[in-house]
Amino acid sequence: MAHDIATVTRRYKFAASHRLHCDRLSAAENVRVFGKCNNPNGHGHNYVLFVTVRGRIRPDSGAVVDGATIDRIVNECVVKRFDHTDLNLDPGFANQTTTGENLVRFVWELLVKEMPDVELDKVGLIETRDNYFEYRGEAVACR
Amino acid sequence: MAHDIATVTRRYKFAASHRLHCDRLSAAENVRVFGKCNNPNGHGHNYVLFVTVRGRIRPDSGAVVDGATIDRIVNECVVKRFDHTDLNLDPGFANQTTTGENLVRFVWELLVKEMPDVELDKVGLIETRDNYFEYRGEAVACR
Amino acid sequence: MAHDIATVTRRYKFAASHRLHCDRLSAAENVRVFGKCNNPNGHGHNYVLFVTVRGRIRPDSGAVVDGATIDRIVNECVVKRFDHTDLNLDPGFANQTTTGENLVRFVWELLVKEMPDVELDKVGLIETRDNYFEYRGEAVACR
Amino acid sequence: MAHDIATVTRRYKFAASHRLHCDRLSAAENVRVFGKCNNPNGHGHNYVLFVTVRGRIRPDSGAVVDGATIDRIVNECVVKRFDHTDLNLDPGFANQTTTGENLVRFVWELLVKEMPDVELDKVGLIETRDNYFEYRGEAVACR
Amino acid sequence: MAHDIATVTRRYKFAASHRLHCDRLSAAENVRVFGKCNNPNGHGHNYVLFVTVRGRIRPDSGAVVDGATIDRIVNECVVKRFDHTDLNLDPGFANQTTTGENLVRFVWELLVKEMPDVELDKVGLIETRDNYFEYRGEAVACR
Amino acid sequence: MAHDIATVTRRYKFAASHRLHCDRLSAAENVRVFGKCNNPNGHGHNYVLFVTVRGRIRPDSGAVVDGATIDRIVNECVVKRFDHTDLNLDPGFANQTTTGENLVRFVWELLVKEMPDVELDKVGLIETRDNYFEYRGEAVACR
Repeated sequence: MAHDIATVTRRYKFAASHRLHCDRLSAAENVRVFGKCNNPNGHGHNYVLFVTVRGRIRPDSGAVVDGATIDRIVNECVVKRFDHTDLNLDPGFANQTTTGENLVRFVWELLVKEMPDVELDKVGLIETRDNYFEYRGEAVACR
Repeated sequence: MAHDIATVTRRYKFAASHRLHCDRLSAAENVRVFGKCNNPNGHGHNYVLFVTVRGRIRPDSGAVVDGATIDRIVNECVVKRFDHTDLNLDPGFANQTTTGENLVRFVWELLVKEMPDVELDKVGLIETRDNYFEYRGEAVACR
Repeated sequence: MAHDIATVTRRYKFAASHRLHCDRLSAAENVRVFGKCNNPNGHGHNYVLFVTVRGRIRPDSGAVVDGATIDRIVNECVVKRFDHTDLNLDPGFANQTTTGENLVRFVWELLVKEMPDVELDKVGLIETRDNYFEYRGEAVACR
Repeated sequence: MAHDIATVTRRYKFAASHRLHCDRLSAAENVRVFGKCNNPNGHGHNYVLFVTVRGRIRPDSGAVVDGATIDRIVNECVVKRFDHTDLNLDPGFANQTTTGENLVRFVWELLVKEMPDVELDKVGLIETRDNYFEYRGEAVACR
Repeated sequence: MAHDIATVTRRYKFAASHRLHCDRLSAAENVRVFGKCNNPNGHGHNYVLFVTVRGRIRPDSGAVVDGATIDRIVNECVVKRFDHTDLNLDPGFANQTTTGENLVRFVWELLVKEMPDVELDKVGLIETRDNYFEYRGEAVACR
Repeated sequence: MAHDIATVTRRYKFAASHRLHCDRLSAAENVRVFGKCNNPNGHGHNYVLFVTVRGRIRPDSGAVVDGATIDRIVNECVVKRFDHTDLNLDPGFANQTTTGENLVRFVWELLVKEMPDVELDKVGLIETRDNYFEYRGEAVACR
């Protein structure tokens, strides 16, 4: 029954450095496109990550999912991988820039198959206090 | 006309204690499922509640709804009921656990019929800074 | 491909004064409808504005849109217009009240045609810490 | 005994409009000194006020002061006076500008004699997210 | 040299329930003094704890103290003790109420002797978003 | 007169990468002292900087200092220097680690001689949401 559906969002954080740079662009184009985010020695952020799952409220537990399970998965697959690292050196970014857009999509890909009996609804990311990115897989296409 | 539709979210808060415990589970299972949230003497939270309504911007007032009316309803039906109480003793939780999921659904049920000429869009709840729950009635089913 | 779609939200702020008052209502009705927000000499807010765009993650840059371009547009069309002003004196509010609902719709109208190869997804506005408004154009109608 | 001393800070808020303007300065000087805060029609803020009292933890109640009493005093003397008003029209600002500095000092003066068996320690004020003012009476002089 | 002195504040959190009640007061007096905080079944909070230490910046590490050491001490002595419990059942509150004032003083007492080569400067506690308590031992007496 | 004294705090931000590493320590010691902050490729933060000045409220302007002047100085001397850079490559950190303690002290040194007719009171820095550093020059010694 539809009335059993809720979403649960859990918040995580990781501190990482990165530099926005695209090998296919010239140095001048990189500066034009990425501005100071292309500064040669990189910079960093305290990333805040929101993982939202969506599912049926289970009658026994009253929960959509066991929070500790989600925490374990996100910490294993995402936080440990990125926390206190340079994102540009991560293999997942070998062929793409470390923009917030690519980062939320990559986090989605890392998590979507790991979800235990619950649907991954969206992945959100605060990069700076004035910058937020969100990715919802295919769902967003049929808004 | 579709262009008249907006949503308004108002924020409320209440402080309450609770304990996650399911009578149908054994003591050991309760610990496994709920972890420290099953500690025998309960604990508590500063809950932050977001009530979102959705409707036509009325030409005269320029408002979707009179905010004071929403405040009165939410305070009467929800905040007064839960603020500075033990949620586990509330009759609405006699047969279900006081999880965030059950709580947002219960708040939805308390509010949905009270809405004055405006549609209840969603109910959100922050339980801790890393934990957020959301319920949208049937709407969520046809995302 | 649907998997290329993400949203980007950028945050802006402006401080402005306003007074909720509708010429078509009597003085008594204005007080009843708007309460203290109808106080004759106005009051003010630190408005926080969220502009969300939605589009394809471009393969080269890894971005949905150039953030600096969005910033330039929003600052030119919205922030400069409203920051450190009295909203009631803005021509856009000559015939409508300066409610949060009218304000998010007006910001949408100011921005929607300026978007560079990207879709305006929603406009959100925090008026006070307990008050949030959102407008999505026609999209909201087919939720 | 010194070990009985603690401070308690309570937070309040009020929304008000103001304009920074000094009659003793020329129009050009006003613009130079106050910038856009001197814009003719004023603007506004969501002010956040912090009132800190300091005193002995009373053995019976375990409190330095009855919070409800402080709330009543601050609401009566400050919040009601300023909330949803134009600060420039307040008699207390007839001869001084409505800067954050003058405002915290004025709030201090309004409150310091009303304190019930407890010492006013400091008054803090957030005007915008990037702007905070603090006043401590004579205490600050002997830092 | 004085120029080597800095303070470091680290933030912790715990969720707990409590009830303000003083055995030496009558039922009526308890209600009068503590209001809804005296409700019979208790309520709860997400407490946010700030522990500030003060000391010399060590030339080698550039740190006043090893943050991991402070974390271990505060987690062992305070967070584990209070998180997901009913404060009223803690032995430390057998003879005193669980007010914010008594709580910050008690946290100070739990920590002050455990500090490793660094001075405990102050203990702060947010109980609700409008309520903050601070304790500084004897230091506060000679402001 | 003491009653003229107030403090003004202004908030700034910069995103930077860094790595905690001390050349005088062995690799093993560096890991022991700095933990994951010593990871070889560095990481990053969204730093939030608070600059507090203290002085007489000037009768004409009602301000302790011209905010735009402080902003210009802090932006020139600090924000531009550190924003979107790798702190470890800054000449100021050639001989000291990029800890929060060294960073607030260094910011103090960059600013203290630039202050225009106003006293620098303290420099505060948020490195992560659970980590805050503060430096007050000699003042802190005579607490």
